[in-house]
Amino acid sequence: MQPTGLQESDIAKEIFQLIERLYPICRSITGDGVRQTLRILQEYIPLTIREVPSGTRVFDWAVPKEWNIKDAYIKNSKGEKLVDFQKSNLHVLNYSLPIHEKVSLDELKAHSFSLPDKPDWIPYRTSYYKENWGFCLSHKQLAELQEDEYEVLIDSTLRDGHLSYGEYFIKGERVDEILISTHVCHPSLANDNLSGIALAVFIAKHLKAASLRYSYRFVFTPGTIGSIIWLSLNEVQTIRIKHGLVLACAGDSGKINYKKSRQANAEIDRAVIQALRDSGDGFALHEFSPYGYDERQFCSPGFNLPVGCFMRTPHGEFPEYHTSADNLELVRPKFLADSLTKCLSILEILEGNRRYLNLNPKCEPQLGKRGLYGSIGGQSDGRLQEFAMLWVLNLSDGAHDLLDISEKSKVRFCLIKNAADALLANNLLREASNSVS
Amino acid sequence: MQPTGLQESDIAKEIFQLIERLYPICRSITGDGVRQTLRILQEYIPLTIREVPSGTRVFDWAVPKEWNIKDAYIKNSKGEKLVDFQKSNLHVLNYSLPIHEKVSLDELKAHSFSLPDKPDWIPYRTSYYKENWGFCLSHKQLAELQEDEYEVLIDSTLRDGHLSYGEYFIKGERVDEILISTHVCHPSLANDNLSGIALAVFIAKHLKAASLRYSYRFVFTPGTIGSIIWLSLNEVQTIRIKHGLVLACAGDSGKINYKKSRQANAEIDRAVIQALRDSGDGFALHEFSPYGYDERQFCSPGFNLPVGCFMRTPHGEFPEYHTSADNLELVRPKFLADSLTKCLSILEILEGNRRYLNLNPKCEPQLGKRGLYGSIGGQSDGRLQEFAMLWVLNLSDGAHDLLDISEKSKVRFCLIKNAADALLANNLLREASNSVS
Amino acid sequence: MQPTGLQESDIAKEIFQLIERLYPICRSITGDGVRQTLRILQEYIPLTIREVPSGTRVFDWAVPKEWNIKDAYIKNSKGEKLVDFQKSNLHVLNYSLPIHEKVSLDELKAHSFSLPDKPDWIPYRTSYYKENWGFCLSHKQLAELQEDEYEVLIDSTLRDGHLSYGEYFIKGERVDEILISTHVCHPSLANDNLSGIALAVFIAKHLKAASLRYSYRFVFTPGTIGSIIWLSLNEVQTIRIKHGLVLACAGDSGKINYKKSRQANAEIDRAVIQALRDSGDGFALHEFSPYGYDERQFCSPGFNLPVGCFMRTPHGEFPEYHTSADNLELVRPKFLADSLTKCLSILEILEGNRRYLNLNPKCEPQLGKRGLYGSIGGQSDGRLQEFAMLWVLNLSDGAHDLLDISEKSKVRFCLIKNAADALLANNLLREASNSVS
Repeated sequence: MQPTGLQESDIAKEIFQLIERLYPICRSITGDGVRQTLRILQEYIPLTIREVPSGTRVFDWAVPKEWNIKDAYIKNSKGEKLVDFQKSNLHVLNYSLPIHEKVSLDELKAHSFSLPDKPDWIPYRTSYYKENWGFCLSHKQLAELQEDEYEVLIDSTLRDGHLSYGEYFIKGERVDEILISTHVCHPSLANDNLSGIALAVFIAKHLKAASLRYSYRFVFTPGTIGSIIWLSLNEVQTIRIKHGLVLACAGDSGKINYKKSRQANAEIDRAVIQALRDSGDGFALHEFSPYGYDERQFCSPGFNLPVGCFMRTPHGEFPEYHTSADNLELVRPKFLADSLTKCLSILEILEGNRRYLNLNPKCEPQLGKRGLYGSIGGQSDGRLQEFAMLWVLNLSDGAHDLLDISEKSKVRFCLIKNAADALLANNLLREASNSVS
Repeated sequence: MQPTGLQESDIAKEIFQLIERLYPICRSITGDGVRQTLRILQEYIPLTIREVPSGTRVFDWAVPKEWNIKDAYIKNSKGEKLVDFQKSNLHVLNYSLPIHEKVSLDELKAHSFSLPDKPDWIPYRTSYYKENWGFCLSHKQLAELQEDEYEVLIDSTLRDGHLSYGEYFIKGERVDEILISTHVCHPSLANDNLSGIALAVFIAKHLKAASLRYSYRFVFTPGTIGSIIWLSLNEVQTIRIKHGLVLACAGDSGKINYKKSRQANAEIDRAVIQALRDSGDGFALHEFSPYGYDERQFCSPGFNLPVGCFMRTPHGEFPEYHTSADNLELVRPKFLADSLTKCLSILEILEGNRRYLNLNPKCEPQLGKRGLYGSIGGQSDGRLQEFAMLWVLNLSDGAHDLLDISEKSKVRFCLIKNAADALLANNLLREASNSVS
Repeated sequence: MQPTGLQESDIAKEIFQLIERLYPICRSITGDGVRQTLRILQEYIPLTIREVPSGTRVFDWAVPKEWNIKDAYIKNSKGEKLVDFQKSNLHVLNYSLPIHEKVSLDELKAHSFSLPDKPDWIPYRTSYYKENWGFCLSHKQLAELQEDEYEVLIDSTLRDGHLSYGEYFIKGERVDEILISTHVCHPSLANDNLSGIALAVFIAKHLKAASLRYSYRFVFTPGTIGSIIWLSLNEVQTIRIKHGLVLACAGDSGKINYKKSRQANAEIDRAVIQALRDSGDGFALHEFSPYGYDERQFCSPGFNLPVGCFMRTPHGEFPEYHTSADNLELVRPKFLADSLTKCLSILEILEGNRRYLNLNPKCEPQLGKRGLYGSIGGQSDGRLQEFAMLWVLNLSDGAHDLLDISEKSKVRFCLIKNAADALLANNLLREASNSVS
């Protein structure tokens, strides 16, 4: 695997095209929207779709009833359709009970959500665990509603059924796994989180063709309840997860924001930081907090897995967040491709990171006689590759892995890795027995 | 106990009134001034007055002779009283030997102290451990003295007697103690340290009516020798002191200055910092140094108690320090009340700080079904209390106490405490066995 | 030993005069230039000169053949000597094979080195481990060469022989050693490194007359191969090296630059930092990197000795570095003397640093009765010496040495040392059994 700048490539377009296909579907934490989404993903990667029955106990939770919806509208007394689910699935409070009634303006307003400070946008609202019905509409539209008798229809069902999620496993050389998780429960919202879904798919597509040291597990689940289900069903196997990333909001124009795992200084955290530094682009780091995406569950104290969250602009920090303005114009192919490039460079660091022992620890070995060193001394040019070799030799004492050496030397990881490979080929290093824990 | 802003309250006036009563008394490290002071404090709290005989060995020291003074003056040859102890007890070098003689201007000057750069103020000077006599006067007055024969009178006694100090103990639920110490040896100086004395009294008054987890010990001692005596007499029991504060210079207009204990990161240090952060007011922190007030003794290496020093403007950093300008105008009721509020909020953190275990450590528990969570998802408002609950759940792994959680989350301690209480009431937490060491 | 400002002293001139004597000699990593240099040093200190035969295996390396040179020139077809070794020994590629041929301009250029961006300066180039011949000349001169047939002569020999180095040992009270190492292989280059050689000599001269706790070992070796040889021959004894400094580039006008040992927080690192802070002059610190002078070998992972590098302007950071402009004008007596003063103050800290136990650890001892304390309390002047005593008493708990106390208190080491001496004389301290490891 060898990621490079993909921004101008066909892949950029392909990622975006997947998002375009998924955008119209009305997803929720259960129901056919998720199934339909996962089936489209199966056209890209051989995903397994798993179904968990309503009522299944998963830790402190139970799998909810399955929600499906066909149509919804609000009509005025003249029979004019003022709000139409067919135009935007955000119009319905996600998980709304079915209703078909005539209601007064007051009652309608009591069941309506809008954004007074963003009067043109439809908000995205859910009511998964408290039964309710409701509509979401632009504040402008809500403000224009007159006293009238309105016909409200929500043609939904909320019945025992299943929750669906997708899983894809790539076997590498080791049983140790890297987890890539993303949430698939949001309806027509592009950045949150069709971007994360598409990014995960293209990472998987890339890795499936590669020679890998780690095994990789991709999990496409509805937010919160989905990761709780997955952890509940796979509790014992989580011991294999050595590193993990939750992907979300990965297609907007913002710089990369990385939220560290609860462990704070796990190898995944260090690898992300190094990859982002090496990229030369700006980025922002965040300490773990128990608020955000499914890292909340992976990093709950009973698991405390080394899983961070890779984002561009974090949830809640772009104005379009959880509104109809989080649409296909907010995400751009070049940013999606940049996210892919950076994720692959993170994984490349994890794949390449090892701990070596210098086999000539007393004084430097003579690099020159092995052709590893410039022959005319005294020239003061950079000699960055030689510099990298000297760093690897000096710090390969069993206490430092290549990431440590890259951090300490401020030399890009790929140069440190190349240096280690050259030294290894010349029998100047051997892998330390504790290279992978 | 529930401290709130007391600045406008009657308590602000009451604290100041106590200072007004104590101000005229001529205190020293021994003598009737201290006794009279402690007896006034007994009108507020049931203080025990202890008397330690001169000559008693206390570690490397011996209790000095008792010093008392009735009068002192300097008269010129015309019999005019130029300097009069009755007008300011600062005029006499504290612990002066008795004298009644005629002296030349030169000899008088050899026994006089003034402040050339603050020509209107009388300095405060002591000579506890080297026998001497002397006067303190404003530099302006000293400069005006003519060649003359002066009559100097210091009607003092320095004889075997006792050193007096006050102690007040409030029994709480535990034998573990919080120590509050303040020095009572300064004559008419308001900020240093009638402010500290009055602050300690009003903290004690407040706590005596409260339900307390810790026991509290208030110690009103002459500086240095007093705390050495107390430590000497209570050497074994110091093991019960879990936290402590020395109070000094607590009534001026400056922001709070906290000097950390020698341990530097003791729970008292963390509690003070959190309380000051939570206050929203500016404050300053200082590392421990072996120079200052009685924390010097409490933090000597053989004790190394977790005792910090709570001040407003530190000694030596306000120009009026140790001069006649440290008077009743320098200290203000509102600053005294602010110091009280902040001390009580520190103690409230210590009272409330515990270590819990999350009883649902694998994934988050479902807060919604317990009524602990907003029911409409997707709203991006602060939800600070839910946020606090998530933090408490995530970090209640036995390794973090509530103070840690408040520090890490940057959520005010009282919200963290409320969250923990709500979770505890819902059987989502239990107290860790090592909650109090 | 008691270093003071030596900048105006005769020593400043003497150090410079030694550099003047050594400057004309053509040194290399082997050969008579080094021998001649070491013999001159013997006039100052009773240095032992050691000879190691060519071919001797030292770790991964072998001692090279011995190189000597008598003359070299380039003549044009008119017989005019354009480049003359007698004018500057930098003109010959150091370690050039002998040659005497007629060559075309093209061939001559293929064996010539110049600095296009510094057209007036002759570069310094070496080819120790790859056999080659070559000339170094100013770019201006190179550019002026016309098509012609040139006579090139390099009257050198490269034969089995010896590598020479110097060693001087001063026995102190203990077998623990402080190592001072400097490289002696550069030809007519003043700052790099006649300055380091002369500095080492004058440190040794100073110490030889002093009463010392540590033993001192001075090593004058050709760079890289010389320290590898020394480490190879003295592998077992390196355990005695408790601290060490490599000296280089010590005579220019730049501030002191100190590169820390690989251990990063070794006592030598702390001592250097404290000495430089105490000096009041600006300085710069550098983390260890495996690139530079012989600290590369001393700090290789199999040795990891606590050896830092003391420089003024680091190699490569002054434009004259490794050119003919690194001449007698670049180094100045006053900077050499300043380097000497600072090195001696570092050594003085190492000599004086100990760990003590406070024999009165409970409360402060009464300094006043021992004459160690000002007798008039309340004066707010600095009292720095008393302050130092309080710090020493407070931190002499077995966990802190005097350097720690100086760091924590921000009081100059010499004051801390004086305070400890005064307390020791009064039986208030005793040396901790782990004072020297």
